This record gives sequence, C-alpha cells and structure tokens, in this order.
Amino acid sequence: MSDTLAFTSGSRLAEWTHGVQPSVLHQAGLAAQRSDSISFALGMPAPELFPAEAYTQALTRVLGVRQVTEYGLPSSALTAQIARMMQARGCPCGEERIFVTAGAQQGLSLIASLFLERGRQIMVEEYSYGGILQVAAPWQPDVLTVPIDAESGLDVEALEQQLQAGARPAFIYTIPLGHNPVGVSLSLEKRHRLVELARTYQVPIIEDDAYGFLSYTDEHLPPLHSLDDEWVFYVGSFSKILAPGLRVGWVVMPARFQHLLGAAKNAQDLQTSNITQYALASYLEHTSFDDYLTRLRTTYRERRDSMLASLRDHFPAGARWHPPTTGIFVWIELPAEYNITELARRAPLEEGVALIPGQAFIVTQPQVYQERHIRLNFSHPNSAKIREGIQRLGNLIQRM
Amino acid sequence: MSDTLAFTSGSRLAEWTHGVQPSVLHQAGLAAQRSDSISFALGMPAPELFPAEAYTQALTRVLGVRQVTEYGLPSSALTAQIARMMQARGCPCGEERIFVTAGAQQGLSLIASLFLERGRQIMVEEYSYGGILQVAAPWQPDVLTVPIDAESGLDVEALEQQLQAGARPAFIYTIPLGHNPVGVSLSLEKRHRLVELARTYQVPIIEDDAYGFLSYTDEHLPPLHSLDDEWVFYVGSFSKILAPGLRVGWVVMPARFQHLLGAAKNAQDLQTSNITQYALASYLEHTSFDDYLTRLRTTYRERRDSMLASLRDHFPAGARWHPPTTGIFVWIELPAEYNITELARRAPLEEGVALIPGQAFIVTQPQVYQERHIRLNFSHPNSAKIREGIQRLGNLIQRM
Repeated sequence: MSDTLAFTSGSRLAEWTHGVQPSVLHQAGLAAQRSDSISFALGMPAPELFPAEAYTQALTRVLGVRQVTEYGLPSSALTAQIARMMQARGCPCGEERIFVTAGAQQGLSLIASLFLERGRQIMVEEYSYGGILQVAAPWQPDVLTVPIDAESGLDVEALEQQLQAGARPAFIYTIPLGHNPVGVSLSLEKRHRLVELARTYQVPIIEDDAYGFLSYTDEHLPPLHSLDDEWVFYVGSFSKILAPGLRVGWVVMPARFQHLLGAAKNAQDLQTSNITQYALASYLEHTSFDDYLTRLRTTYRERRDSMLASLRDHFPAGARWHPPTTGIFVWIELPAEYNITELARRAPLEEGVALIPGQAFIVTQPQVYQERHIRLNFSHPNSAKIREGIQRLGNLIQRM
Repeated sequence: MSDTLAFTSGSRLAEWTHGVQPSVLHQAGLAAQRSDSISFALGMPAPELFPAEAYTQALTRVLGVRQVTEYGLPSSALTAQIARMMQARGCPCGEERIFVTAGAQQGLSLIASLFLERGRQIMVEEYSYGGILQVAAPWQPDVLTVPIDAESGLDVEALEQQLQAGARPAFIYTIPLGHNPVGVSLSLEKRHRLVELARTYQVPIIEDDAYGFLSYTDEHLPPLHSLDDEWVFYVGSFSKILAPGLRVGWVVMPARFQHLLGAAKNAQDLQTSNITQYALASYLEHTSFDDYLTRLRTTYRERRDSMLASLRDHFPAGARWHPPTTGIFVWIELPAEYNITELARRAPLEEGVALIPGQAFIVTQPQVYQERHIRLNFSHPNSAKIREGIQRLGNLIQRM
C-alpha cells in the first residue's frame, strides 16, 4: 500500500529534522555529571549560592493563593519586580513592555518566530550561543556571520559592509555583554553604531543579556535596548543569576510587537507556570536582590581571579586570553601545536576535567581553519576546584 | 534611506503574524475574572480540590536537593510516576517513551514542528481546540476538517474518503475522549478503524488526552496509542487533573521520534523547570494519586449531574445535549431562533455568566451556516453555582 502512495514515513518529516545532531553541550553536560570530575563546561551559577530557604518561604506564601494554580494573565507582581531590575540595569521601561518567558531560550524562540520565514537570512556573531541556531533551524535560514573581536566585540564595520552589500537578515542576534563564548563586552562606541545600523536598515536586533547582571567592573555599558527601544528586543534571564532550574526569563520588547509575542507564546505553552511566577515575585519582594547580586558578583569575581591566576601558573607560554569584565567564561586561545579536539576528548578521561572546545561555538564551519580556542566557565566550580582543575588541564597540555 | 531599501518594517514580519487576532478564550477569561460572575467559560479543574498542602510539602522536600535548581536531564522520578499513571490509563509504556513538556500545549507545538512544512495540510475535527491552529499558524497549512458526531465522535468514514481522494495531512489531530468542545468520546470500533487509517496512509495521529483521566463511566475506551504505538503520539496533561498553573504535561511518543522531540524541546525552552518536575514527582510518590483522581471524578460527576438537571429545568424545549461520560464540558445545541453570538455577549453583561459560543471552536468558518452551540464547563464552578448560573442563563434565553 505504501508503494502506491509514493512516499515513506521518513519523507513525511519536516526537512529540518534531517539535520538534527546530538548536542555537544548536552554530551559535555553528561560528562560533567561524573562525581569525581571538575566541570568548566556548562554556564551555570554556583548552586550553593541559591537562596533555597528564602525561595521555599516564597513558594509557601504563594501556594495558599488560589490563582497560582490556575490559568491567568502574566503576574504583574513579577513584571513590576523585573521592571525594577531593568531600571537598575540602566534600562528603564514600563512594566507592560516586559514579557515573561520560560527562560531566555524561549525568548529567542518566540522573537525568532515573528520574523523568520523559509529562506530568510539571520545574522550572528561568528562564535555564538548555539541555541539561536536551534531556534532558527526549522526555517533553514541562510546564516550570515560577522567577526567578533576579543577586545571590543562584534565587528560593526564588517556588519555594515554586509548590509550595504544587500544582506537583509530577519534579525541580528548578539550577546553584547559577557559574550558567550568569547567573554567580551561590546564597546560603547560600537553600541551606538550597531543600533544606528538596525534603525537605518530596519533590522531587528535580539540582545541576549543573560550575563549582563554579572559585571565585575564599574564601567557601565548601556544595554542596546536603552539606546533604541524600536528595533532592539532585550532578552533577560534568571538562569545565570538565580537558577536555570526555574526556567524564567523575560523579554523587553518594542511596543508594537506586544500582541504578536503574546500570540507566539500562547501557541507554544499558553503561559509560564503561575506557581513559578508568583513565587519568584514574592521572593524578589521579600529580599534585597541587589544585595544578593552583589554577593554573587563578589564570589564570581574571586573565582574569575583564581582562574586567571591559575592559567598564568599552569598554561603554556603562547596561550592567550582577555580577562572578562562581565559574565562567567574565559575564552582561551592555545598555540597551534595543541590539538583542541584531542584536549577536549582527553581532559575528562585522563584528568576528570570537562570543558567545551571552541569548535562547538563556531556558527559556520570554516574549511581551512583549525580551531584553537577553549571555553572555561568559572561561576559553577569554587576557587579550590578551579585551581585544581586548571592545574590538571595544564598537566595534560604538557603531555600533549 | 528606507525608501531605497524598498521595504517597510511591516513587510519584515513573518506572514503568519498578519493573521493574529485577539483570542476569544482570552477575552472570556478576562470576563470570568469579575468577582460576581459565574464562569462556565474556561476548562479548568476545581481550584479548591488542588492538594496545596501536599504539594507544598513536596516542594519543600525537593528544594533541598541541589540539582533541582540546575540544568539537567528530564526527571526520571517523574517519568516513572507518569508511566505508572499510563499503565492505569490502559496504556502501558516504557519510561523512556515518556517526554515531559510544559503542558499539553507544548506537546502539540513540539510534535507539530516535526511534521509541518509550509504548504502542508493538517486534519482536524470540524469543532476543535483552537490551540492546535495557533500551533500550526506559522506554517500556514491547508486545514482540512472532518465532521464530528455528538454520539460517537470523529466521522472515520469521511476521513477515509478524504484520504482516498488524496488528502495527505502532516498529521491528524483528535481529542478522542471527553472531546473539547463536543464532549463526545470516540467509540471503540471507530478507534480501531482510525489507527488502521493512520497505518495504511502513514499519517501520524496526535491524540490529545487532556481529559482522559476524568471518566465517569465504567466503560473503558483504550487510548489510541495503546492500539498503535508507531503512528500515534499520545499527549497528556496535569492541567485538567491537578492544576494548569503547574504547566506540566507529557507526550508518549513512537520510539523513532525521540531524538527529534528532544531537539525541538531544546530549541523552545531547553527543558521544563526542574523544580516543578522534582516537586511533582515527589508529590506523586507521597500520595495516592488514584484516590485523588477518584475524589476528583466523584466531584465532577456530581457537578455534571447538577448541570444536566438544571438544563432540563431551565433551558427551552428544543435545546439538545448528550450527557458527557468523560471530560468537563456539556455541548448544547439551541433552537435556531436564538442568536448564540448575542447570548454569549449578553450573558456576562446581564446575568454575570460567562460561556463560550460554539463559533469559537469552528475550525473553518462556513459561509451559509448559523452556529447554534454553546460550550459549558462544569468542573470549575461548584454545584450551587452551576444551578444558579444555568437558571440565570435560562432567564436570559427566555427574554431573547
């Protein structure tokens, strides 16, 4: 019978599904679950800093409130708290512009769905968070890349040249503070030029600010959304500052897209868990989140400094990195004689250390280029583990 | 500058966004929030039956466990509990086949993304849950419909004729037990014929079983997935049996699609909240969920009977309905002289009663057909409110 129908079960799947590969990050995550290992692999906050008691109290408070178990509009208590945080972040905005999501990933997914059609382009930094490519995959877009400089971020000039030459991406995706994986923050001058390009060429920007609250410097770089609230979608997250297990993030959106984002969210999951929203709002109302963030920054600054000191002590001459002023990653370039793929494969086996090779973040695979970077996370392991892990990595590199 | 680029901001939006309309259900939900109103509008469980204390205890237990705040694999404790429930539901399956989602809506969204491409068809009952259309909207599919009979469900013969005539839907979406909005359950004979059609024509079925655990009869109708686990995706939910505010559902999937569903979920939101997953698993481990479900069924059966009795007392001769044996809705056909649109508009204003007109569930708007149905929910209001609300509605109908 299937012969007469002239198709097989495989051919009925959407075309994007043919390209699905096991995730490198996922595999690294599994490796990191070995009890004896030290993981520099994933981007997670320190679990011991999660305010479990205060959050439990918040949950207990809200579970007596009837509407938390029902369907409902987004919690205005939560959007009010996020608006307060955005004010502190240098990006004042009305609560009605804040859209609660199931983590930053859903924010990316919803925004992308407003602009993507089959055959369109997207513009991404040459090293980037792979989640944006997974989001775009069903539309099989033409992925354009723009170089990223380890000192000042995205190459705005190269971007302008592409736009001038006719590139018309559905959106530009960028992580302008504490970039993942490069660790760099986009300079002030480049910020102004970038939003001007978005306005001129009418290209929406998705500003992924997952790491923006984790800054270890007094230099204030304004969010892109604060420079242009017509073309920039700001995407925020509690995953790196509170806990990824909450799955709560938010979008600050240009006003004209509000009803569309609502429609996209409705289709995906109707709404974010009310219990989670109300509990988080209650936690934020009953705590000084600013004090909590200060403690977080102090701890992560110490861990960053431990990592940088250990790298100087144990990594070979010729290895290079820029100390990150924001975020949770150090991006290290190793001399050409070291095979990074081998390093990433052998490190968990021989030294019980997990890391992600730069390869995993390359957006489009170059043919004639040997990737020489590794990404190391310093927020999850404590300073003692960081020193131990970097020393073990250094030992392995010496043997290579 | 924008002139030379020859496009406007509007044209950059994906085409599906042009068709976005305010949701009728959403508006009814807002109306239902008036404190003096009685709502038959939404499909929600009785909030007073939510086991708040036991669930709070479960949350407190799990918040001490470190991994609940982190990223992680789906909770095997939860999939084990759901597997137990599926066994009781007459659909034994391995835990590895259970895929946890953020509510049934996300299940629909993820499954649809595996099969939809621009220009494909989908097959839906002529009255159905609008969420499936929202899910499919970005692909702008050709929506085919099949009649649904209030006594025995989907018209399998009509479906077969369409398939024979060449229809090739990306999937068939059906709610075979306690149908929303029609309230009907698909007969055993039709179940066997339906899955046979799926196999013969190699068309996946999405079996939305959101109401399947709420059965008020001893007649056991097997889930479609238990009759064919190669072509039927079973979609379950805690929203109607525990609380929609949790946003937890699940899919029981044909084994060959497991990695693809994982990739789609990863792109949408990485994972469902670990805290929610672990708390729910712990709650289920520490309670007799079967006893809880029995209490729920007893209460809803009483409420259904109150509604049916009140309808007999207060609705006009000529109004017709079938007592639902499963689910939470009564589907009522009113005589042609009553204008349903007017009824649904005036009921909240004049009688403080919210309901959804049948119009809201028609998949493709017929041109020459006046919709004569209303959908009434009986799980959320208690019996006293049900009697009061039906009497008020009866009064209004008399005035029309």
